[in-house]
Amino acid sequence: MLTFVGLGLWDVEDISVKGLKAVQDADEVYVEFYTSRISTSVRDMERFFGRKIKTLERGDLEERSSKLVEAAKEKNIVILVPGDPMVATTHSAIRLEAEKRGVKTRIIYGASIVSAVCGLTGLHNYKFGKSATVSWHTSRTPVDVVRANMEIDAHTLLFLDLHPEPMRIGDAIEKLSDIDASITDLFGVGIARAGSSDAVVKCDRLEKLRHYDFGEPLHILVVLARTLHFMECECLIEFASAPSEIEEMVR
Amino acid sequence: MLTFVGLGLWDVEDISVKGLKAVQDADEVYVEFYTSRISTSVRDMERFFGRKIKTLERGDLEERSSKLVEAAKEKNIVILVPGDPMVATTHSAIRLEAEKRGVKTRIIYGASIVSAVCGLTGLHNYKFGKSATVSWHTSRTPVDVVRANMEIDAHTLLFLDLHPEPMRIGDAIEKLSDIDASITDLFGVGIARAGSSDAVVKCDRLEKLRHYDFGEPLHILVVLARTLHFMECECLIEFASAPSEIEEMVR
Repeated sequence: MLTFVGLGLWDVEDISVKGLKAVQDADEVYVEFYTSRISTSVRDMERFFGRKIKTLERGDLEERSSKLVEAAKEKNIVILVPGDPMVATTHSAIRLEAEKRGVKTRIIYGASIVSAVCGLTGLHNYKFGKSATVSWHTSRTPVDVVRANMEIDAHTLLFLDLHPEPMRIGDAIEKLSDIDASITDLFGVGIARAGSSDAVVKCDRLEKLRHYDFGEPLHILVVLARTLHFMECECLIEFASAPSEIEEMVR
Repeated sequence: MLTFVGLGLWDVEDISVKGLKAVQDADEVYVEFYTSRISTSVRDMERFFGRKIKTLERGDLEERSSKLVEAAKEKNIVILVPGDPMVATTHSAIRLEAEKRGVKTRIIYGASIVSAVCGLTGLHNYKFGKSATVSWHTSRTPVDVVRANMEIDAHTLLFLDLHPEPMRIGDAIEKLSDIDASITDLFGVGIARAGSSDAVVKCDRLEKLRHYDFGEPLHILVVLARTLHFMECECLIEFASAPSEIEEMVR
């Protein structure tokens, strides 16, 4: 059996009790920090779980994934994944390969920034449109997604590239404005270190957020829809020190 | 301090280790089953946590929420919430009230159907557009949201009403087709009992899903975008017994 266990957002204690039990019952435990990360080191995770943990590299997840699947025919293999395991498309591919080859799979879900962003910002989940990743390699996609979401008055969650190094909100806004300079007039919310006790959440126009000091990664960015629900507006002022200008967006 | 703790998707073991500790350290523990539910009874939760737990009714969350906020001035109050605590807008309102009155708040995130739907179906997170609720009270909103998402080629996650009783997928499709009969030609994925070991995931045209036996609630419904990524298609065939017709949607 191949079990994917979500680690949640911040540290090893964000794992679920069910996930913890799966780790304890496993024959082999792996962790994957390529698609995202948590703040706990592998060594500290080994101490917490009382288990040896092997780190999977990108190649282990992609071209060498059949080795994991093969091993899971005989053994209980657990793969620990930051956040919720299947938000990164890589893991769906491994699960698909396993199921096609008759290996049972199981998912133990974890907290994801996809829903946590609502708690961090007060923005309403039902108002989020498509999401996208801002990568170091310049791409039109995130700008196109923001524009498409604007057409249906939806917020956009932008994931920031992790490789070769974790992108910061300032870098991401730079990348977006390289493609479409007018995008920096829009309002956004920058979030740093979601799930930690020193998370930073700040709402302003992107041109302002670009120079704001969010501190250490991981960072993520939301571009706001054309309009806000009045409760979203109140929350952004209270939780994200939004400027009073955003009250004009309330419909 | 007022701490919102996510219970995750299915049973009490879906709580995080961090959440469990918060419950153990709390002066008073409440649970809220109005916005969603998990399968564990309050009595069994009390046994698991070794704590007395009071159930909050709708009125406690809305007009009487200031009682909770007041108590949290002096005491550590934990509110347990199914899923991720802030996906339901009610809880953001209580958090806002607390912060405005100088009461510290904390969120311990939990797994949510919002991201788990990717693991259950193999659909890509970045392709989901806005979400909506299909309520017993007939409303155009979910149909309008599906149509808006179609314009930008996005999937739609539809939450199903819980009151006065949990809506089933068949009921939801009925409600949608009362507003727009042609919607039943679209493809969707019905999901029952997400997070449990007997979850059912089935993809077909809505007119077919309407009569499919998903078993007991909770149910949720995804309406597919106009197109699919080839990996989404493969996953739907493997994980959701999709008909081969959906291969024509791959772009």
